[in-house]
Amino acid sequence: VTQIPALRTLHVDGESVVILDQTLLPHSVERRRLESLAQAAHAIRSMQVRGAPLIGATAAYGVALALRADASDARLATALDELAATRPTAVNLHWALGRMRARLAPLPPAQRAAAAWREAGAIAAEDAESNRRIGEHGLDLLRALPGAGQRPLRLMTHCNAGWLATVAHGTALAPIYAAHAAGLAVEVWVSETRPRNQGLLSAWELREAGIAHRLIADNAAGHLLACGAVDAVIVGADRIAANGDTANKIGTYLKALAAREATIPFWVAAPLSTVDWSCADGAGIPIEERAGDEVLRLHGTDEGGRPALLRIADAATPVANPAFDVTPAALIAAILTERGAVRPDRLEGLRRAAAGDAREGL
Amino acid sequence: VTQIPALRTLHVDGESVVILDQTLLPHSVERRRLESLAQAAHAIRSMQVRGAPLIGATAAYGVALALRADASDARLATALDELAATRPTAVNLHWALGRMRARLAPLPPAQRAAAAWREAGAIAAEDAESNRRIGEHGLDLLRALPGAGQRPLRLMTHCNAGWLATVAHGTALAPIYAAHAAGLAVEVWVSETRPRNQGLLSAWELREAGIAHRLIADNAAGHLLACGAVDAVIVGADRIAANGDTANKIGTYLKALAAREATIPFWVAAPLSTVDWSCADGAGIPIEERAGDEVLRLHGTDEGGRPALLRIADAATPVANPAFDVTPAALIAAILTERGAVRPDRLEGLRRAAAGDAREGL
Repeated sequence: VTQIPALRTLHVDGESVVILDQTLLPHSVERRRLESLAQAAHAIRSMQVRGAPLIGATAAYGVALALRADASDARLATALDELAATRPTAVNLHWALGRMRARLAPLPPAQRAAAAWREAGAIAAEDAESNRRIGEHGLDLLRALPGAGQRPLRLMTHCNAGWLATVAHGTALAPIYAAHAAGLAVEVWVSETRPRNQGLLSAWELREAGIAHRLIADNAAGHLLACGAVDAVIVGADRIAANGDTANKIGTYLKALAAREATIPFWVAAPLSTVDWSCADGAGIPIEERAGDEVLRLHGTDEGGRPALLRIADAATPVANPAFDVTPAALIAAILTERGAVRPDRLEGLRRAAAGDAREGL
Repeated sequence: VTQIPALRTLHVDGESVVILDQTLLPHSVERRRLESLAQAAHAIRSMQVRGAPLIGATAAYGVALALRADASDARLATALDELAATRPTAVNLHWALGRMRARLAPLPPAQRAAAAWREAGAIAAEDAESNRRIGEHGLDLLRALPGAGQRPLRLMTHCNAGWLATVAHGTALAPIYAAHAAGLAVEVWVSETRPRNQGLLSAWELREAGIAHRLIADNAAGHLLACGAVDAVIVGADRIAANGDTANKIGTYLKALAAREATIPFWVAAPLSTVDWSCADGAGIPIEERAGDEVLRLHGTDEGGRPALLRIADAATPVANPAFDVTPAALIAAILTERGAVRPDRLEGLRRAAAGDAREGL
């Protein structure tokens, strides 16, 4: 188990869902109880829960919360619409909502509430299992890197695609946790990931797991790749187009360019639920533009360790704040899924294999 | 005149030198009076003055301050050594100190103090004039961009290479100021430039000058370049090798990679004093590693507008903090100097022309 046992990103408690409030992490650890559709939608929109897989699971539970008192067709439609509108880029959200719709719409309203809790639970359990497998497949890639086992492998990640971003295990960090568990030495370059500094979540996870790491400004990634300090880059994904073009946290693309220039492998780790088969390539992926205030204000602590908010420039400062960018498939050496690692142009083969297994009841 | 008339980055007042303390800008405007070698060295080391050209001029005045009471050979040597050790990457520092040594060492000690003030003044005046010319030559490049004059040109910069980084006018921002003065519409993408957020200085300069701009997280540069939102990238330099490889603020290299990918011109603006002719290529440029605390703590204001310091992660967090990176000459479309804009492989020609002019007394 990679996460801190006492902390789970999301769990069911009676008729509500309890989440870790990630806007306050790692400065303070607080839980929020979600008891309504509105609270679930707010948790996703405000990034109390974040990370594409965790957003998907939270949205599924949001449907269950929405149907507690009223499971009519109209209420189901409202819940699906409201949750779908929370974040535009992460496709796991739409995948999870599509799955909830397919499961619940055919049922009589009286059976929907219980079925919604079961289906959301299944989505969450499958996410944990997918990520465990991503870790295993990723470990195979790590073992094949030059120097593996002879010296610590130096891996670079961006944002947080650890257990905090998922129901369990993480995506990009899953192979790193698997390596650590298997006794394969690794060190991790953690990019702070402005403007929301989710890299601090990765640093916190790695520290708790006892894995060597160093925090860097996002700007430092190019220099470190160019000077031979990195063996591989591994990131998560918010949406992968059918051709392998990958939307992930803003700044990912710059790391992919620098990795190619340094002939260092650049890997994307994500469950197949992150692939949007309806999207032919990256040009079709909507890029969320978030409030400028995210750039102008930062959460942290004062010198006494008390939570504090800092303004780095006054509120009148004009800001642009795109939250994601698209890394072209040509820059990606492998996409690491629960069904193994493939070149981006082989994604479609995994889809056919998965569909075949489903037909055969595997 | 591009800077705020009442504010100068550096000026002589009696037997001391007055600087703007840039560690507090733009949150508060405070001046520091430098009266000794130690104070001048501290101002450079702590980045109260920053920007390669301004570091050079400040170091020259630091020699003058050092010689006020004692202008012996030993004192001159000590002053040159102490100032040279303040920052390893910016070569203008060494250039200015070399020029001071060449001017002062042959003189009898009794004549050195007065000569030091004159030579430092000449270095400062020449910096202002060089930058004014960089602005003029850069304006020619801007006028030749597709769309110039028909719609606002969208330029991207990094760090602060404005008037704050120089004695006057700036380097990368000089062409932007020249364009604005000439009525050529421009808009500027300002990268915040973590960890020290010097992009906020550029935003402040541009706001004071009435030039349209938007602040972005450093991570957003790749996306903006890839999606066609940028017409040219223009940055300053801390040291340029003889082959055109350019050391500049950490993160510059990532922008250069993304500019090449988008086939957008990437320009370096710097006076010829920034070229280190003794350095064949970028591999010979030392990269300053600064304290990790620069990444972990940020200056800004609290919600009441009072200066505040925020800690984004605890002091035990392991950090790497390289302050510069090297952009290979192959990624640079033009180096913009006081003698005109040239391709990096034509730098040597400018040097010969400058040497020829000097021989002829021009």
